[in-house]
Parts: sequence; C-alpha cells; structure tokens
Amino acid sequence: MPVKVHGVILMNIEEWEEYRYVEAGIKESITLIEDPGLKKMVEHVCHSGGKRIRPIILLLVSEICSGSYSRSLNAALAVEMMHSASLIHDDLLDQGLVRRNLPSAPEKFGPSGALLCGDYLIAKSIAFISPYGEKVIQDFGKAGMDMAEGEVLDLKLEDESFGENDYFKCIYKKTASLFAISASIGAYTGGAEEELAERFSHFGNALGTAYQIVDDILEFLEVVEGKESKFTSETLPHIYMKSTSKEEALKKSIDCVKLHVAAAKETLETFRECPARDKLFQITDYITVDMLENL
Amino acid sequence: MPVKVHGVILMNIEEWEEYRYVEAGIKESITLIEDPGLKKMVEHVCHSGGKRIRPIILLLVSEICSGSYSRSLNAALAVEMMHSASLIHDDLLDQGLVRRNLPSAPEKFGPSGALLCGDYLIAKSIAFISPYGEKVIQDFGKAGMDMAEGEVLDLKLEDESFGENDYFKCIYKKTASLFAISASIGAYTGGAEEELAERFSHFGNALGTAYQIVDDILEFLEVVEGKESKFTSETLPHIYMKSTSKEEALKKSIDCVKLHVAAAKETLETFRECPARDKLFQITDYITVDMLENL
Repeated sequence: MPVKVHGVILMNIEEWEEYRYVEAGIKESITLIEDPGLKKMVEHVCHSGGKRIRPIILLLVSEICSGSYSRSLNAALAVEMMHSASLIHDDLLDQGLVRRNLPSAPEKFGPSGALLCGDYLIAKSIAFISPYGEKVIQDFGKAGMDMAEGEVLDLKLEDESFGENDYFKCIYKKTASLFAISASIGAYTGGAEEELAERFSHFGNALGTAYQIVDDILEFLEVVEGKESKFTSETLPHIYMKSTSKEEALKKSIDCVKLHVAAAKETLETFRECPARDKLFQITDYITVDMLENL
Repeated sequence: MPVKVHGVILMNIEEWEEYRYVEAGIKESITLIEDPGLKKMVEHVCHSGGKRIRPIILLLVSEICSGSYSRSLNAALAVEMMHSASLIHDDLLDQGLVRRNLPSAPEKFGPSGALLCGDYLIAKSIAFISPYGEKVIQDFGKAGMDMAEGEVLDLKLEDESFGENDYFKCIYKKTASLFAISASIGAYTGGAEEELAERFSHFGNALGTAYQIVDDILEFLEVVEGKESKFTSETLPHIYMKSTSKEEALKKSIDCVKLHVAAAKETLETFRECPARDKLFQITDYITVDMLENL
C-alpha cells in the first residue's frame, strides 16, 4: 500500500526488492511461533504496514560495502524486531490507541499480552543477531539500552527545565541510535572495517535525528495519520515556543531537519556510487523532507 | 543476609565467593548507567537481595568443565539481567506490590519506569552475552523467547481446560528454560562440547522445574515471605485438586518435586567430582526440598 502524505503519493517502498526480502523473512519467522495466542499478537504487530526503513537501510549499506546483502538478512530482521518491540512498549507507555490505522497492541490484546509480545520480539532479535560476532552484538545491545534510556528521558520531557540539549540527547537515544546501528551493522555484515562502519553510523544518526524531528513536527501540527495516543511528548517546537512565536518555532524546527538531512547526504556522498546508494538518498528524503512538503 | 524459611536458617549463599563475584560484577555495571533515574531503578531491582542462583549455577558449571570461571562472568551477568527483567515485567503482569520484602519496581517507580527498566536490563544482557559466540547467544535468545511464551501460557492458566501437561509446558518455558541455559552456557563458556552441555542443560531443566513447583506449593499454602501480588496463577496443587483432596493434591505435588530433584541429582552424579559439583548439590536442595522442610 503506497504511503500517502496529505494526498501526495510518495515513492512506493513496498515495491523495492529489499522490502520484499525483509517481509518474507518476517513471515517465515512468524510461522515458527508455537503458541497460537502469541502468534496472533506478533502477526498483528508485524503485519500492520510498517515501512521497514531500518532493515532496508541495513541491507542497502551492506550492498554498498560488499555488493550483496544475502548475509545480512538476519541482522536486518533483528533490527526490525527490536524496533517493533519498542513500538509496542511505546504504546503501553503513551496509552497508544491506534498505530498504523489499526488498534494498537495494548488496545487489541490488553497490556499483559502487549508487554509479553514486546519481550518476545526483543528475545527473538537476540537469536537473529547471534551469528554476527561480538562487536555487532555489543552495538546492538547498546542501542537497545540507549532506546530504553531515551524513553526514560522522554518521561521527563514535561519538566520545565527540559531544553534543546536534553531533547537532542533524548531523540538520539530513543530513535537515532537504532538508525545509526542499522547503518553500521549493515556495513559490518558487508565486511567493512570500523572506520567505514563509523561513517555509516554517522549517516544513520543524522537521518534518524531528522526523522524524529519531522515526526515531532507532524505531531505538533496534529497532522499525523493513523496514529493516536493519550499522551504525547513535549518536543522541539514546544521548546522553541518558550522563546519565540509558533511560526518561528516551526521554522526553526524545519531548518533543524534540513540541517540534519544535509549532514546525512553529505556523508552519503562519500560512499561508493551505486544503485543501493541512490536508494539511500531516496529514503533520506522520503522519511524527512517529503513528509513536510505540503505543510 | 542469610535466607530464613519458617525460622530455619539455610546455608548462607551470600558467603560464597561465586555470589560475591556476581555481586561485584552487577555493582560495577550499575556505575556505568548515565541517567540518574534509570540508575536508581536498576539499583533498586538489582540490590533487593536476590540469591543469584542462576549466575552461580553458570559459574559452578563452568568451573566443573574447565577448573575456572573467570571467562564466564559476563555470561553469568547476562543471565541475571534477563532474570531481573523478567521479575520486573512479572510484577507488571501480576500487579506485584512487594518483591523480596521491598516495594516492587512498578509500585515504587510506576508502570512506565518499571517497563523501561526491564527493557534496559534485557538490552544490557545482550551486551553482556556478546562475546560468547553464535550457539550460546542463540540459546540465550531462545530462552528469552521461551520465558515470554511461558508467561503468555501463564495468562491462560485459569482456563478450566488447563491440565498437567499445559502446566509443565508453561513452567518449563517460563522458569526451567533459564535454569537449563544457565547450566549449558556455563558448560560452553567452560569449553565443553555439545554433548556435555546438553547433560548440564538436562540438570538445569530438572532443577528449574522442581524449583517452580516448590514456589507454587508455597504460594498455594500462602507461606511465601516477602512477596505479594494482586494476581496469582492456578498451579499444580490446584490442578490436582480437580480430582483429589487438598492433602492428596499437596502430597502429589511434593512427590513431583522429589522426582525432579532426584533427576537433577542423578545427572549431577555423572559430572567430575569437585568442590563446584558439591556446591551444585547444595543449591539443588537449598532451593527445593529445604524450602519444604517445615511444612
């Protein structure tokens, strides 16, 4: 189903071979789940129309580094399982009602089922990441720790004292860190050395930061489609509005997006020119500036 | 603080060097936590007087296999982090109020803090287990999946149709599986081959099953000290009471404990005689038949 933002059809990531490769891997892994109740919950979460951005980034980076991504599928599935688990647990934290136009997992299966489904997916991600060696697995665990720590920071977003630096530290941990390791793990599984993997991590970090600011801008303007929760966080536009007008706060936030998108693209320019790199350029716009196009 | 059961002081595991080795490792890892709020939660959970049974089993098995456990500490900490995370999330599921004579994590820090603290500890366990290679890490992830699946089964314990087989499948997954991999991972980190590691897994499975039945018997008799939750599960004595008297149901449950303890000890007999093996014999009684002594 192509993604429409304010009526405009964006590129259709579901037609990409990387998307279909990830989808097939997820489908196959769900068939192995024994308990029917757990299987139903995982199906609901994993088939609710996610764009698979992080695993696709991982596969594309692996292709840039080694010309193939066949060795990287399990790492990509590990990243997507960790991401899906964080969405379920986020919906528990925010009392999320609707996610991707469907009832959220807590809404459909109750808080206990949702909690356990999230834990199951995190544990499954450990099994998926197991073949990839100490450095990759340690980075993967560290990203999981960052995500939990970022959400703890997010709980404190309402504090008056919460400023710009706190916000960027929070969104690095809760969002950009998983983008950063999606890219760096893609590099390692593509055989890259640490220096090149670190550059890809930098790309992922800049892209993930821009992505979260866009998400916050859309929530601030209440134009987010298919998602609804009782609690929303105080974000960059709110922080800027403590010292400027709403319009100025919005403009400063959008400028911030563009700054990080430029940093992501600048880093991308340094990598081997190939179709996979072109797709990373497309994804970079697709999940950031394209989403702001019709504001 | 020695563990007292109905006034009788049992062996004092806190004086064991393996216990102190694990405690020091946990303390050190907590110092690395950046966010003060998260640090406080992890301290509360990790310093609430756990007996460290699973990591100590791992260290002792490693010693039996290789004469040392110095290479195994991080694996032991990974197991304890996964266990601690499951206790926090269990308290969320059962609306646990008191755990080890202290307010439970949800009671003290609220459901959001407790949820995130559990997720943080699972992610930290991934970082700890990262040096140990694909087989160990895959088994570790599989145990985490089993634990979540076991808890999903536990949610269905009230169903009338829930019989003995369902109960044993549930307690294997939610409890015995972590005992089993504590032992098998101890073997692998001690350099053992698969055949020997499988035998240790069998020991851990039998011990973990006996341990959970004892826990359920104590809960059934309402003599559990320092623990309180709004919801309790239907367990083996309840299942037996569908067809026998309370006394008979209790006797059958205790016989079941003895059966699994005998199986655990029988397996232990097959391993190299040494002080570490003696300690495993002590632990086997300590967490099962010793707990039933004064009923």
